[in-house]
Amino acid sequence: MNIAIVLYDRFTALDAIGPYEVLSRIPGARATFLAGQAGPVCTDNGMLTILAERELAELPEPDVVVVPGGPGEVAARAGGEVLAWLREADRTSTWTTSVCTGSLILAAAGLLDGKRATSHWLAMEELARLGATPVDERVVFDGKLVTAAGVSAGIDMGLALAGEIAGEDVAKAIQLGIEYDPQPPFDAGSPAKAPAEIVALLRGASRFSERDELIV
Amino acid sequence: MNIAIVLYDRFTALDAIGPYEVLSRIPGARATFLAGQAGPVCTDNGMLTILAERELAELPEPDVVVVPGGPGEVAARAGGEVLAWLREADRTSTWTTSVCTGSLILAAAGLLDGKRATSHWLAMEELARLGATPVDERVVFDGKLVTAAGVSAGIDMGLALAGEIAGEDVAKAIQLGIEYDPQPPFDAGSPAKAPAEIVALLRGASRFSERDELIV
Repeated sequence: MNIAIVLYDRFTALDAIGPYEVLSRIPGARATFLAGQAGPVCTDNGMLTILAERELAELPEPDVVVVPGGPGEVAARAGGEVLAWLREADRTSTWTTSVCTGSLILAAAGLLDGKRATSHWLAMEELARLGATPVDERVVFDGKLVTAAGVSAGIDMGLALAGEIAGEDVAKAIQLGIEYDPQPPFDAGSPAKAPAEIVALLRGASRFSERDELIV
Repeated sequence: MNIAIVLYDRFTALDAIGPYEVLSRIPGARATFLAGQAGPVCTDNGMLTILAERELAELPEPDVVVVPGGPGEVAARAGGEVLAWLREADRTSTWTTSVCTGSLILAAAGLLDGKRATSHWLAMEELARLGATPVDERVVFDGKLVTAAGVSAGIDMGLALAGEIAGEDVAKAIQLGIEYDPQPPFDAGSPAKAPAEIVALLRGASRFSERDELIV
């Protein structure tokens, strides 16, 4: 099973590494990091560089596609090779997936039209604007299109997907292997749970804040 | 605040990326990936390469040290530059931390002698053998030494540490930013919760299994 993880400049590392850490543990899985060009790709904060092992064109028919989010999604969905490759790859994939604002890229490629999907909580209006039907759930399946909420939700998506691909026992073995028994020290991981002033702070600082006003 | 994330051949990606994704979001933080030599470092499964921006000697006095685990820890703690660098860095660090079997490296460097610490659930006996006092908790603080359980526990550790470093509001803002509201689809993330046959499967396949027999 070939898993294609699509990188682009200024992606968010955990969006990609969460699903990678889970899905690469499925027996027989081969995860490959791809980008428009093979070579170094820098994350959103400029502090981490991951190597894209191959360029997109070298892996045209992966079984599973994973698209991370991050501020670089704006450029990625403005056009170019990622969108074109995604449209082609989705024709033959078994699963086409995203984490966080990666769903905006899938939507821009036309792959989420009318489909139930999720994204980072700050990007839900943008997701609707791009033609998807936003669903406020952590992991959303609509046929073979699977989308996860912000950043860390890719781990939950990876496990749900592992269960579909290889069965619950394999998924549970992977969960135990990565000791995924989360115990966050605070309960502020969603806008419904975080203090209102912190939600407002992030909303105001977001690159979606201006757009939200334009939309509303 | 300088955060040094120590890489070595065959580390586990999420061990490093979980704390990185949290700690790099603290205002003023600068995360740097380091290794014995600057350049590409391959993860445990050979499917991912991360660039070490600098060699260890170039960052002798970081404020925060993060040591990931992974099968490569065996070679890393067998001797060499990582252990020597850790001993020096710990003299001036504010926090010296590990995720998963990274605690075995800290212990081999002599930094956990008699200290309360944790590790991957499969490595707890080995941790004791190396002089630490194993504690079955997800994140363990003993003074400035902070250790996390297996792989995914580095996210919880990162948030706890962010709270200590920058205050709870900053930690909660980071948690909301990465939408860390975990909802695992299965409840198998610890040996106490996973089905017994899956626990036995992993225990039998573990590189610690033979050693466990030798110890017991």
